[in-house]
This record gives sequence, structure tokens and C-alpha cells, in this order.
Amino acid sequence: MTSLLEGTPDKRMAVVTGRAYPELADQVAACLGTKVLETTAYDFANGEMYVRFTEPVRGADMFVLQCHSGKINKWIMEQLIMIDALKRASARTITVVAPFMGYSRQDKKHQGREPITARLIYDLFRTAGADRIMTVDLHASQEQGFFNAPVDHLTATPVLIDYVRNHLPLENTTIVSPDAGRIKVSERWAAKLGNLPLAFIHKTRDTTRPNHAVAHGIIGDVVDRDCVVVDDMIDTAGTICEAVRALRGAGARSVTLVATHGLLSGPAVERLSQCGAREIVLMDTVPIPEEKRLPNMTVLSVAPLLAAGIRSVFEEGSVQTLLEGLPDDMRPRNIYA
Amino acid sequence: MTSLLEGTPDKRMAVVTGRAYPELADQVAACLGTKVLETTAYDFANGEMYVRFTEPVRGADMFVLQCHSGKINKWIMEQLIMIDALKRASARTITVVAPFMGYSRQDKKHQGREPITARLIYDLFRTAGADRIMTVDLHASQEQGFFNAPVDHLTATPVLIDYVRNHLPLENTTIVSPDAGRIKVSERWAAKLGNLPLAFIHKTRDTTRPNHAVAHGIIGDVVDRDCVVVDDMIDTAGTICEAVRALRGAGARSVTLVATHGLLSGPAVERLSQCGAREIVLMDTVPIPEEKRLPNMTVLSVAPLLAAGIRSVFEEGSVQTLLEGLPDDMRPRNIYA
Amino acid sequence: MTSLLEGTPDKRMAVVTGRAYPELADQVAACLGTKVLETTAYDFANGEMYVRFTEPVRGADMFVLQCHSGKINKWIMEQLIMIDALKRASARTITVVAPFMGYSRQDKKHQGREPITARLIYDLFRTAGADRIMTVDLHASQEQGFFNAPVDHLTATPVLIDYVRNHLPLENTTIVSPDAGRIKVSERWAAKLGNLPLAFIHKTRDTTRPNHAVAHGIIGDVVDRDCVVVDDMIDTAGTICEAVRALRGAGARSVTLVATHGLLSGPAVERLSQCGAREIVLMDTVPIPEEKRLPNMTVLSVAPLLAAGIRSVFEEGSVQTLLEGLPDDMRPRNIYA
Amino acid sequence: MTSLLEGTPDKRMAVVTGRAYPELADQVAACLGTKVLETTAYDFANGEMYVRFTEPVRGADMFVLQCHSGKINKWIMEQLIMIDALKRASARTITVVAPFMGYSRQDKKHQGREPITARLIYDLFRTAGADRIMTVDLHASQEQGFFNAPVDHLTATPVLIDYVRNHLPLENTTIVSPDAGRIKVSERWAAKLGNLPLAFIHKTRDTTRPNHAVAHGIIGDVVDRDCVVVDDMIDTAGTICEAVRALRGAGARSVTLVATHGLLSGPAVERLSQCGAREIVLMDTVPIPEEKRLPNMTVLSVAPLLAAGIRSVFEEGSVQTLLEGLPDDMRPRNIYA
Amino acid sequence: MTSLLEGTPDKRMAVVTGRAYPELADQVAACLGTKVLETTAYDFANGEMYVRFTEPVRGADMFVLQCHSGKINKWIMEQLIMIDALKRASARTITVVAPFMGYSRQDKKHQGREPITARLIYDLFRTAGADRIMTVDLHASQEQGFFNAPVDHLTATPVLIDYVRNHLPLENTTIVSPDAGRIKVSERWAAKLGNLPLAFIHKTRDTTRPNHAVAHGIIGDVVDRDCVVVDDMIDTAGTICEAVRALRGAGARSVTLVATHGLLSGPAVERLSQCGAREIVLMDTVPIPEEKRLPNMTVLSVAPLLAAGIRSVFEEGSVQTLLEGLPDDMRPRNIYA
Amino acid sequence: MTSLLEGTPDKRMAVVTGRAYPELADQVAACLGTKVLETTAYDFANGEMYVRFTEPVRGADMFVLQCHSGKINKWIMEQLIMIDALKRASARTITVVAPFMGYSRQDKKHQGREPITARLIYDLFRTAGADRIMTVDLHASQEQGFFNAPVDHLTATPVLIDYVRNHLPLENTTIVSPDAGRIKVSERWAAKLGNLPLAFIHKTRDTTRPNHAVAHGIIGDVVDRDCVVVDDMIDTAGTICEAVRALRGAGARSVTLVATHGLLSGPAVERLSQCGAREIVLMDTVPIPEEKRLPNMTVLSVAPLLAAGIRSVFEEGSVQTLLEGLPDDMRPRNIYA
Repeated sequence: MTSLLEGTPDKRMAVVTGRAYPELADQVAACLGTKVLETTAYDFANGEMYVRFTEPVRGADMFVLQCHSGKINKWIMEQLIMIDALKRASARTITVVAPFMGYSRQDKKHQGREPITARLIYDLFRTAGADRIMTVDLHASQEQGFFNAPVDHLTATPVLIDYVRNHLPLENTTIVSPDAGRIKVSERWAAKLGNLPLAFIHKTRDTTRPNHAVAHGIIGDVVDRDCVVVDDMIDTAGTICEAVRALRGAGARSVTLVATHGLLSGPAVERLSQCGAREIVLMDTVPIPEEKRLPNMTVLSVAPLLAAGIRSVFEEGSVQTLLEGLPDDMRPRNIYA
Repeated sequence: MTSLLEGTPDKRMAVVTGRAYPELADQVAACLGTKVLETTAYDFANGEMYVRFTEPVRGADMFVLQCHSGKINKWIMEQLIMIDALKRASARTITVVAPFMGYSRQDKKHQGREPITARLIYDLFRTAGADRIMTVDLHASQEQGFFNAPVDHLTATPVLIDYVRNHLPLENTTIVSPDAGRIKVSERWAAKLGNLPLAFIHKTRDTTRPNHAVAHGIIGDVVDRDCVVVDDMIDTAGTICEAVRALRGAGARSVTLVATHGLLSGPAVERLSQCGAREIVLMDTVPIPEEKRLPNMTVLSVAPLLAAGIRSVFEEGSVQTLLEGLPDDMRPRNIYA
Repeated sequence: MTSLLEGTPDKRMAVVTGRAYPELADQVAACLGTKVLETTAYDFANGEMYVRFTEPVRGADMFVLQCHSGKINKWIMEQLIMIDALKRASARTITVVAPFMGYSRQDKKHQGREPITARLIYDLFRTAGADRIMTVDLHASQEQGFFNAPVDHLTATPVLIDYVRNHLPLENTTIVSPDAGRIKVSERWAAKLGNLPLAFIHKTRDTTRPNHAVAHGIIGDVVDRDCVVVDDMIDTAGTICEAVRALRGAGARSVTLVATHGLLSGPAVERLSQCGAREIVLMDTVPIPEEKRLPNMTVLSVAPLLAAGIRSVFEEGSVQTLLEGLPDDMRPRNIYA
Repeated sequence: MTSLLEGTPDKRMAVVTGRAYPELADQVAACLGTKVLETTAYDFANGEMYVRFTEPVRGADMFVLQCHSGKINKWIMEQLIMIDALKRASARTITVVAPFMGYSRQDKKHQGREPITARLIYDLFRTAGADRIMTVDLHASQEQGFFNAPVDHLTATPVLIDYVRNHLPLENTTIVSPDAGRIKVSERWAAKLGNLPLAFIHKTRDTTRPNHAVAHGIIGDVVDRDCVVVDDMIDTAGTICEAVRALRGAGARSVTLVATHGLLSGPAVERLSQCGAREIVLMDTVPIPEEKRLPNMTVLSVAPLLAAGIRSVFEEGSVQTLLEGLPDDMRPRNIYA
Repeated sequence: MTSLLEGTPDKRMAVVTGRAYPELADQVAACLGTKVLETTAYDFANGEMYVRFTEPVRGADMFVLQCHSGKINKWIMEQLIMIDALKRASARTITVVAPFMGYSRQDKKHQGREPITARLIYDLFRTAGADRIMTVDLHASQEQGFFNAPVDHLTATPVLIDYVRNHLPLENTTIVSPDAGRIKVSERWAAKLGNLPLAFIHKTRDTTRPNHAVAHGIIGDVVDRDCVVVDDMIDTAGTICEAVRALRGAGARSVTLVATHGLLSGPAVERLSQCGAREIVLMDTVPIPEEKRLPNMTVLSVAPLLAAGIRSVFEEGSVQTLLEGLPDDMRPRNIYA
Repeated sequence: MTSLLEGTPDKRMAVVTGRAYPELADQVAACLGTKVLETTAYDFANGEMYVRFTEPVRGADMFVLQCHSGKINKWIMEQLIMIDALKRASARTITVVAPFMGYSRQDKKHQGREPITARLIYDLFRTAGADRIMTVDLHASQEQGFFNAPVDHLTATPVLIDYVRNHLPLENTTIVSPDAGRIKVSERWAAKLGNLPLAFIHKTRDTTRPNHAVAHGIIGDVVDRDCVVVDDMIDTAGTICEAVRALRGAGARSVTLVATHGLLSGPAVERLSQCGAREIVLMDTVPIPEEKRLPNMTVLSVAPLLAAGIRSVFEEGSVQTLLEGLPDDMRPRNIYA
């Protein structure tokens, strides 16, 4: 029918993308040996969006990529509208591809009368017509259970670990969790890199001075060590930069920051540039525009991972393997270097 | 429980509002003799929103007002999140109050592979937990059928007609439709004002010069008449300002523009200020910020209408009556005059 | 499996029909080069219906054609029962084919406590097991949004326009809307036939004599013109015959009536035979039995259009093209001539 | 609000009725000490129906009575439309009251590619907006499981047994099942009347002459006995009249027929008038028009039973008691005598 | 992908089994010429179960066999968990295979405030992700209507009848129903075996001695006859053993018991061993462990029937044929002999 | 209606219980000043369960308590059946009360082709008819998002902290997490008790000896400290007893174990009795039978907490307050002492 719909006559697929980060979709499509299917999308004067696919999608397996960054609510809405259009155009299946899943940190009620927005987002996708969700390194794995259909929960950990293994002297490395809630992840990193030592930052609130002072104790040994601070995302970089300072204050030889999602919101770039980290390693699950890139920042492409995930879904293979080894075409390299 | 939850112990209600136009909610609450229930709402650095209600809503009938204007996608999402929070906080019923329903013009497919976003929006509200929808002057009444539960479709027509009746010499007035698709509405206005004469603007595309010239014929008699151009909304004001020019070119004595929704997007204000209309009459179903207000613009408050609708729902009376007479407290006045 | 299930072993389809107008299904099947799949259907003595398919349909794409005319409630129910039987017999997909969609005029609430039966019908089809809807020239396009899955909204306009173009001297033709609510459609006709002049009938109620007199003003020039009155359907023919009389009274040279759906209910045939129209052009989206056929009535077959729609769905092509050009096998001809 | 909506301001109810058998609704309302809420309902010329409630129903518990008889498909559709209108008018709860549930015999697949229309009907009611179903003597009790919400399955058995007890000499009575599938019911009757003797008619197909002869053997002793043949309904009366003839041929002293639902379709009345039964006892769960009434037919009113059921639902009492005793106001009497 | 997933690359299937009766799944797979797909399943110390499939199932038609016997609630839950895992692993379709459907006797409310657990079980399967149900000889055929999707209701009757025909002198055989509610089934057996004579056991409660004596009358002639008592299941064997004794007391020459489901709960085996039946013929729709097998018990394998059903579903043939003839590979033989 | 249904005529409630731990329901009811509503529940011989409520529940708010312990799958199924019965008996609302939510640890996929059984359980409750869930100390708070309606997530932490505060010398206490994944909880305990010191057990797998040795390092200072090991549950007690041993080996002065859920499965009691802990403090969210109680075990009653939660729901107050203070009637005491 069209060169952009790949596959046999009986089984076709295509990747489409919203406007948040179309370059990533292009890269994913390139990894798949195809091109992104053309979409018409623009804003009306009052802010409503218009979307239309310019070629038939009837009977095709569609992958709708959108990065939940920047004007995050607008882009989520655009993705919902794209799904609605695909559903009404008789796509065979519709897979949401959200490399970073917006609102995933609002996954529970801390107090009464709060929403659970993370669950809401999954429900909205379902209602619009999504059959499955593909995403990378959720804030909490439990979120898979927010969707009552398949969730392909990919992880960038193998890519990031491979990079660390090749760029740091492991014998002197300690894995550090920036906060008590993420130690489990650090433990997994430490194990995969060969039982490296572990440490974590423990915040103590000074109860004698309310709303005021927080001490950052370090539990574990970091003196003269090359510390790798591991987290799922760097948002405003507050916690992680305090961790860097605490580690350096405690005598660490170097501090490397590693995270999958580089949201880099608000003061993040300024904080990162001043915190004294040796290197900051991120995936591009959200776009990292030029003005946010620091000299010591390494951004690895998530495109091969997403492409491998999409290929598995389309060819009805197993996504499981993606979670274990590291195929050759997923070797990490700095895409903005 | 709290003075903001009105009613008997067994039956309580409250109005809450998103951040798009909180002043309208205040006015609605004032009409109801109450105050808006306090809500905590703010943006995180990466654009995600946080919402929480500071007082219990368990067992209450909640009315969630949001204006779909400005950052329309963001505000719709905020309303969805508010609904989710209310649902999980055990509100008894949740009514969406959207004085102008966003995306309501995208109510059908004109071509293949388009979405029907208007339907999608209703489905999103339903999924989040809305039990009913209250809105004013939908672009097409058929949209009521997009929701599989009660829709209170209020109309500002009685308020607007009352205003026109009191401000224009009816014996010399002609009701004009700015385009062929809205004549039915004009016909209704003409009838209600006492069988006034009718006219409409008929656009003809010059088929010999593609994509180019459009002639605006006037069908009906407008020479020396006080013309009232009636529409449901003024968005970029392109069509309606062309109508004014065509009418004036054809010898109309004056042209008054009347519409429920004053979106006034993009070039609208500039166009309106230059088109030569005598007066522009609007409701404030979306906020009309100071910089958009023209000297000859009259903005009538929609708050009494919404308050009457809410009271009917809460007291289990009939919304029907709102569609017919014009209660005393709904007398139109220019709220920004 | 059976010669009536067309396609490859992996992809088969069949057309089945209710008892309202089986001849149309035969014609559709003939256009597709196949036969209607045999169905057992009869009434029990107490009015309940029985339906059974005599051949396996497991894994097939099924198209269930029923005309919503005559005993309309009974035939809708029969179609629902057929869908239930197909669902339980493991059909792969089920498409409702309703050339005229019953109840489509009841698409909104005019007053409180009315149903929106048009939406209800779509919901009933969904509940019974329908995956998609195929229909022709809905009363309001918004109805597509009543179904939360694909709707193939075909239009007979190209067929009807083609007929008019070949049977009337266009240079002397004016397109007339029989009422203010349908002018948009007339405008489209006028544009497609080369910017023909436009007129419409404007009803004015005499407010001094309640429930009594209605004047039919004509807005636009019709003297000595060949008028083509365009509407989506002719039901009791009251409005349209008044239009004919008004046009003839105003000096029109001839009046031709064109509509997609010829319901011809109650007094329609008598009215049409006496109104003075030159010709009445209809599609057979509902059966037009012999006793209703007038000498000056032309009935064009809708079968090629439906067959083209079905073929597009089955072969996963684009229905879009049906809305634009006019394939050779859809040339209009009077099927009862 | 209106005298027809009964109850306290916080809890109101009303009965509405379709056009199949409005007299029954009047009687039910009378038993409840109220009147039927006024409904506007008529047919359009093309057979579509229009329904509207003339008074507000917001917040009320509504009971929608319709008899599934005569034009059964039309009346079921009318009931669905009424439910839709009530749902959109914000009724608090909607209860379908179907004294005889149409299509209840099509409750399973006997062969492949049949529907299960009985289940479909329940689903249609659910989709339209019904919250509960009230019905009398289902063909199979399992049908209660077709609805995923409360079903009030009332039984007329106590009323009918009470009548038989008072009109027949029990010491000489035998309870007879007209076919092997209904013996369980007969057994229950026999037990309740004091361990009366039991018999049943056993049909044997003569396998040597296909499609031809059926012998009606009687298993059990009936000579000189007053036989009471018990069934849930009399439709075309074929089976039951053969039973009467077989019993009389075998020497029964008299044969009385008792059934809840007197559908009396097609040849039923002629057959009954000629079969030689002493008396035929029915409830009026469907209307029994004058021309169908035989001199030896007794029709007992189902209105007190329905009213008692409705009162229990509205007052949140127990329907259970209806199934056991026989309140004074439910004493059986022949309503057409 | 794996030899255990059968079919072409585009269409694959596999059988998986819970732990209730894995031997049956092995036999079914063998009939299909394949092996059961390996599953990891075990109990945690606190009783929670863990299930995982060791090979990819993406895109495959999966058949999930579990016998509802023994720890019936646990095994139903295990089947639900298996379905959830398959759904999340992107199986194309999921068919529940429950040779004996647990809780199928709780298919209606006898009194107020009872559940309809049979319906609940179907809903649970649906919720977990089941697309269709395959089962054998339901207690009431109406249960097919409890599922709103295809139910393959297989019957073992042809297998059992074939066995009886070959092992009993039909000329002297009487078919006996052990209770009034099952005579319809007996009638069908009698007809299929050539209009054999019929009898049934009629229980009468002695109303003068409450809760005490029940007389078992036999209606029909059994003296010197070879009686075949037919039922859908033998659970505690109370009713059926009383039937045997009553028949023998009445002079029957021999009594053979035939049933599809041999639950053999509690005192069943002891009762059966002492009741004096000549032979007991059962299918193995639930496992019949060695300690429950009596010398005069014949157990026929249900595996060929299930395999034929699965093959029909997978190859999109007609299950209907299974209900009629008896393919060669379904010849009955005693699997434990 | 009955003394067991509490409240006004318009608003009634009752607690019902399954058979897993009826004593807890009695205590909860006592705290509420009422009694448990009587339920008939037993097993049939084949393992199917029967449930019936002996008094009307129409219109009542029902709380269905079941402990997910022991025969956990059976008791979950019983709770589902109870919900179905309540739904069909017209309960106004149905709240699942599951003090310990079974399967809550299976809340994500660790590998491909695993179920997310925790989500499944919530879906099953929803399908059966549950309107809300009340539970205590979920394994992961994210599970609240598995239910698309209110979840009352109560916590026993205030009760447990209050006990610890009154029984241990806080100045010498260190809070210990038994594993890296639970440090966040320990951090919260440490903060609430006045910034106590923190430690955690870090497991390291000896990678040179696969599947074999695990070293338990302690990160944080524990020498001569009174250690309080905090966890959400004690199941087989393996991890926590190793933690005790590690702490004691490292020089801790005493080790106290505190957990909400005392599942005490398999070897738990033996391990606990030998591990050298000073005291083990548990809530009775599951029954702790006499044979599992150790001399140094303190079991605090969860009944006051559940009763307070139920009262809040019924009186439409705020559950929030339960999460913060500690009402007088919730003072902890050892219920088995």
C-alpha cells in the first residue's frame, strides 16, 4: 500500500509520532529500516490540536510514540487524539510508546483527597483505544498493574551499565543511592557490576527546627572512591546534587551521575553544572535540547532499545530477551558528542 | 463538616474549580450563597500538575468547574485529575462544569483518519469518574449524545436575546447568519424576537482561481437595517468580521455581533476592533482578559446561569425551566463595564 | 469451507441479511461477485423472531445488512439478534450495514426528559457485538461520534450529483434548500456543480395566530429557474412538497427533488404525486415497493456503493476514496425504470 | 413536586408504562395508591417511536412497565427508549418491570450459530440504563443470571395454587405435566397441595415414520381423576391441548389448565375452545383482549403481585416474602368475570 | 519458535494446564499431536500461588485446561492467574477449557440473598482475560448465556450412548431418570437408542412427619428390565443410589449408572459400592484417583472430545459437528481398565 | 428492620464476615457497638461453597470482612461469592475489608509471562460487585492504583509506634531495615520516634560460588544498641531471622521485631523461636492460632482500626484522620496476653 507501512500484505506496521520529540521517532524508524508515517498535526488559534494521518492505516499494527516532556499535558493529549484517530481508522492494534511515562511518580495517595494520576493516565490511554503500552524504566514497577493489558516495560539498565563498565575503573567504584527509597536499584547495579560496594544518602530532618534543616548522612564507605550515583530520573536535580556535594564533602574521589530519564527541569542544569560531578550519563527518553547540554553530559540514544521492543511486538517475539542481554546494535554511544 | 459544603447532613454539595478562570467559580458560588471549596493545585517543575482537596468531600455532590481556554489541553487535564481525586475521595456524584466545551467543533470526521476529538473528551471525563456534564451552547446539540449519562445543556440565548431586546430598536432589526450552517439558529432568534427578517452570508468560491477568491454574497435584505449577526462563538473572528464588512458594504445601518463564547483567539481582537461593528455582545464562558476588551464590547456574566443549573441538579429540580424563561437573577448586565 | 465465504483460508468474509430488504443484499453480493450467506429466519406465533446461520462463520468478517424501514423496530431487533448469533458463532469481525440508519433524526434532546434514541441504537449494536458500522448519508455527521469504534460513513452525493449533471441543463439550475437547517448541504451541491445559484425556503410562523399559519418565504432568486431541491431524506414529504409549491408559486420553471433516503411514509406518495415536481430522484437505501413508485420517480441503486465500502473494509483499503471520485461501476441508473 | 411522584422529598418513585398494556400499569399504580406518571409516546410516520416524560423524574426511583406481547419487538424497543430518556433525565434508579419477559425461551443454543436472545435482551436493558429487572415466572430460573444486577423474580404460583385450592376438590386431583421438561414444577405443585398424585405426558416419536407420528403416552394414573395441567405459559396451546385430549382419552374426569402467561398466539384460542378442558386459569401478565376470552377462562390480575414487588423495592424491604405467603390483597379473583 | 507451539508462523496454538489434573492435558495434547506447553506453578508458604510460562506465547491461541475438582476454589483461582499471565504475555486468544465447570449447579437464586455463583465464575474468567469457554455437559444449558462471548458446549452423550449400545441388550433396556428434573435428558437418551421405554423416580415427602420420610415412587415400568439411570453428574451419589435401590426393590433385572461427571465426593464411593448397580459408566472430566475406582466402574476418556473441540476452534471449523456424529478417534474405551 | 442493621431508616449498615477469621469481625462489630450480621456459609461435598444472608440487606452499606490467610484461595473466593450475593440482594454499597490483602506481593512482572496477580484480585472484587476496598499496610502503596474506585488504605504504624515508644528505651534504639527495599519505611519510623539512628541489612551474593552463599552485611551502627527491625509482614521469617542473627552477631544489645501482618507460614514459628529476638510485635490482620504464639510474641488487635475506618466510611467522615493521630480506643494492648 505504501512503503511506510512495513510487512507482508497480511501484517503491516508503522510508527507515528507526536510533536514532542519527532527526532527520536525518526531514529527508531531508522533502526527498524523504515520511516515514520506522515502525520498532519497543528494547533488551532484557541489551542485545540488537529491530527490526521495522511495514509491508510487500516489493519496495521501502529506504534504511537510521544515523549512526555516540555508541555507534558498537551503532548499527552495529542497522543490520546492520535490514538482516537487510529482507532477510528481501523488500525489493527495500537501501542502507546512513551519512553518516559508522564505522571508516573504520582502513583499512590500520600494523603486523603489526592488523585492517583499515574493510574488515570493509563486509563485515558485505554479509553482512547490503546491496546498496549511500551515504556522504559518506570518509577515503580507496580505501575505495570495500572494497565489491564500488556505493558512492555523495557529497561535501559543494560545500556547504562555497559557504558559505566567501559568508562570507569570498576575496582575503585562504589554504587550510591541518592535516597533510601532507591537502594534496591543500587543493589541490583552493584550486583551486576560484580558485587561492588554500596552506600546511600540518609536524610535526617532536624526536628528541633521545623521546616528547616536536613542533614545528609552517608551510610556506607565512600572515602577515595569513584562513586556512581544511580537514579531513575534527574528532574530538578536537587536531591542528586546534594548527594554529590555530600559525597564530595565525605571524601569521594569522583562522582558520576547515571539516570535513564533526563528531565532537567527548572534549575536542574544550573545545579548540575555547579555540583562537581565528574560526568552525567543519561538516555534521551525525553529530548535534551542544546541549551541544556553540559560538557560533561553523555546522552545515550534510547532508539535502539525502543526499536528492538517494537520489532519484538510486531514479530510476536519475546520482549523478555531485551531485559537480559545487550544486542550488538544497542551498544551505548553519546549521541550528542 | 465544613461551611463550604452546603446542604443537610445527608445531602451536601460543593463547587471546586481548576486554575483556568477561578473568578467565574467564585461568582457561581456567590450566586449559590456559598464559597468555592479550597483546592491545592500547582505545577511541578517538569510540567506535571498536582491537585488536592483540603477538606473532606465524602458523600458530597461535587461540581468541578473549568474553563477550556488558554492552555486548553492543560486545563482539561487538570479537570480530569480533579475528577480522579474526587472519585477516590468518595464524592457521591461528580459533575463536570465546562461553560465552553473544548474541542466541541471536532465533532465529526470530514476525511478519513481524522479523530472525533469531541467524543474523546467526553469519554475521558467518563473514565476519570464524571457522572454528568454541564455546559453552555454546544457547537452542535448532537454532542449531548457523546455522553452516555445526563448532559445539562444550558443555553445563554434567553440572556442574550433579553439584552438585544433592551438595547436595539427591534422594528428596524434583521437577524443575520454569518454562514449557511448557522441559519437555523438565526431563524430561532428571529422567531423569538417577533418574526424579524432574516439574512445570511453565502460564500462562493471562485472555481476559476483555485485556493484564492471567495465572494461573500448576502442572501436577504439588509439595506438600512440594524443587523444582528448571531453565532455560537467568536474564535479568530475571521468569518464574522468578513460578514460585518459585507453587510456594511451592502448598506446596513449598523451591525451588532452576538455570541455566547468569546474565545477571541489570535488576530480576533484586532479584527474586531477594525471591522466596524457597533457592538460586540458576549458571555464570559471563557475569561476575557483586560487586554482583549474593546470599548464596544459587552460581556454578560454566565455565572447566574451556571448557578441556576447547579441548584437544579443538587435540589433535583428540573433544568428544563432554565431553557425557557429568564429568572430575575439572570438579568443580563455588562460585567466589565 | 463454503463457496459463500469468500477469501483465502486465513481471511474470509460473507454478507448476511435480515428480512427487511433481502433484494438489496443480493445486489450487494452480486457486486462483490458472491452470494448472500444463507440464513434461517422466521417469526414465532407470539412475535418473537428466530435466526440461525446455516453455515459456519467462525473466523470470518461478517457484514450484516438490514434496512431500517417498514417495521423498523422489528428489523432493528432482528439485526441485533443476528449480531448476537454471529458473535457466539465466533465471527472474526461483525460490521453492521444500515444503508439508512433508523432513529438518526432523534440525535439530541430538544426538551428535558427526551431520549437520544440515535445514540441508544449505536449502543445497542455495540452491546450485541458489532465492531463497526457502515451507513449512508447520516442526518447529522456528528452521529459518527455516537459509536466508539470505526464508522464508515458513505455518501451517495457523488452518485446523485452525477445523475443531476447528466439530466438537467446546469446553466439554468438553482440549488434549493427546503429549510434553513439544510443550507450547508445545498451549498456543497452548488459548489460541486460549478457555483450554481442558491436559494432556501424560510418558514415564518404568524405569531398573531398561534398554531396556525406558516408563511414560506423564498430567500434567493428562482424565477424561471430549474430548481433542484436537495435533502437527505423524504419521509412524509410535507416540507419538501410545500417547498415545491412555494417555488412554483414564485415562478420556478421546474422543480426536481433529490434525496438519498426515500422513506415515503404515510401521505408521502400522494403528496409527491400532486406537488408538481418534474422528477424525484432517490437511492434505494430502503425498499421502495411498487405501489409507491411514481412515473416521475427515479431510484438509483445503492448496492455498488455498499459493495465498494465492504470491499474496502475487507481488503483493508481506504474507504476515503469512496467519498471522492465515482468509480465506473457506480454510474447511476434508474433501477426500477 | 407532583402528586404522581410518591414519597418523601428525599425519596420519590413513580410508575411509567409503555403502550403495550397501559391498563395493567393503571392497576398496579392503583394498588400502590398512586397514578401512572404521564408519558407522551407516539409513532412517527416511518415507524420510529417518540417518548417523553412530561414531569421531572430527577432523583426518583422509576419503574418502567411494559408487556412483551403483541408487537413484541416494538414494545421492547419502546421500553429501551423510555429507559434512555429516564437515564438522561437523571432518574435515581430504573427498574424494568416485564411481567412476561419476551424471548425468555431462547435461553440457550440448541445448535451452532444460534443466538441466545434471552441474554441479549437483558444486555440491551442494561445498556439502555436499567438498574434492575422485575419479572414473573421466568421460563427457566437460570435467566436471573443473565443480568449482572438484581433481578426480582416474582412468582404467581401462590396466587394460582390458592385459586385451585378453592375451586377444585383436592382429594380427587392429579397434577399433570404436559411434557417431560416441566415435571419439576408439577412436583412442586403436588407437594404444596398436599402430596397430590403426579403424572406426565411422554411424547414418543415413531422412528419408523420420520417427521410424522408422535404418540402421547401418559405416565402416571389419571383414570377418573380431576387433572390439573400446570405450565408456565400457554402460547399456541398445541402441546397443552394435546395433553388435554390424551388425558381425556385415558379416562380423566376433568382437565383444568393453569399457567402464568396466557400468550394465546395464533391458533391458541381455537384450540383451547375445542380441547375439552373444564377451565383455563391464567394471570394477565400480557393483555388478554376480549376476543380471546373464552367462557371457561379465568384471568387473575397480576397487578397486586407487581405492586407488592415495587413497594418492596422502593421501601427497601424484602421481596423474599412475596415468594412465600399470600398477602390479603393478593387474593385471586377473575378480573374479566 | 518452539515445537510446542503448533501451527504456521502466522497462526500458532498451545495447550497449558493447571495442576488439578495435568494427565488429562497430556492426553488432550497427545490427541492433537503435540505436547503441553511447560508451565512453572507452585505454592508459596502462605498459600498464594505462582505461575509462569517458560516459553513465549505472544500471538498464540492458548487453551487453558483446568479440572474443577478437589481443591476446587484453589484450582479455579490458579486458572484465573494463568489467564492473567497469558493476557499480559500477549496471547492472541485465551480459551478456558473446563471439562467440568465448577459451581455450575449454583445457577439461580432459590431464595433471597443467595449468590448466582455460576454466573460469577464466568464473569471472573472474563475479567481475567478469557475470550471463550469450552466445557462439557453443563448442568443447565442456559449457562451458555452467562458468558457474553462464544461458549463451546461439548457433550459426551454420543460417547456414552455408543458405549451403552455396545454393552447392553437394548431390547430389554429402560432409561430411568433419577429425579423429576432430569427426565428431559432421559427422554433424549431413550429416543436416540430407539424409543426405549422411560421411567423416573418420584420423591414424595411425607407431610405428616416433617423433615423425615421420603418415599421413592417409580413412575414407569421396570420389572425385569435392564435399567440405565442417566444423570449429568454423580456427586455424593445419594440420589442415584436411592434410585438403584428403589429400582431393584421394584424388580429391575439390572441397573447401570451413566453420568458425564464423576465427582464422587464424600460418601459417594462407599454408597456406589453397596448400592447394587451392575456397572457405573463415567467420563474423566475430573480425575478419578485410584482409591475411588470400583471394579464395576468404567471411565471413558474425555480427551478425544476436548481435542476435537480445540482443533475446531483453532482451525476455525465448526464445533457443531462434534455435537452430532461420533468421529472414529472418539470411540469409547475404559481408560482405567 | 433488624437490630443488626445499624443506622437510621434511610441509612443502614452491617458487617458480614467470611469463615477465615470470624472472631475479628466480632471484635470489629463490638467496637462499632453492633453485631455481625448472620450469614449461612458451608462447603458442599465437592468443595463448592454456599453462602446466604439470613436477613435483608437491601439499601444497606455492607462491609464484607475476610482474612486472606490459611486456605487463602478458598477464602478469597468465598468473599467474592458473598459480594455477588449482596449485589443481587440490592445492598447500597459493598466494601471489601481485607486486613491483609492476599497476593499483594505479586504486584509486578519480574520476568516475561508472569501474572500481576495483585491487580487481578482487585479486578475480581470489582467484577463481583465491590464498590470500595479497605485494607491495612499494603506491601506497596502503588496498589491503591489497582482499583479504580476508593481504597481506604489504613495503617497500623501509629499503633505499633505507640507500643514501641512505651516499651523500649528510645535513647538507645536503632531502627533497622531487614533489606534494602524497605529502608524508606524504616526512615519514616526513625523520624517519627525522634530521628533515631538507622541501619539496614545488605545482602551480597558471593559470585564465585553460584546459588550458594549470601553474606549479610550491616550498613549502619548497631553495636550495643536496642535494634527494632521493622517490616510490613513476617511470612516464613527467613529474611528477618537472618537479620536478627546478623544484628546479634554484630553486637546488638537486643533485637525487637515489629510487623503488621504475622502470616507466620511454614517454618516461621520455629525460626522465630530460635532466632534470639527479644520480642515480636504483630497485629492480628490474620488469625494467629494458639499453636503459633510464642511467649515473647505480642499481638495487638487491628479491630479498633478497622472499626474506625468503617465508621468513617459509613458516616461519610474522613479516613484521613485515622492515618495521623491515635484515638483513645486504639491504644495498643496484647490481645493474647
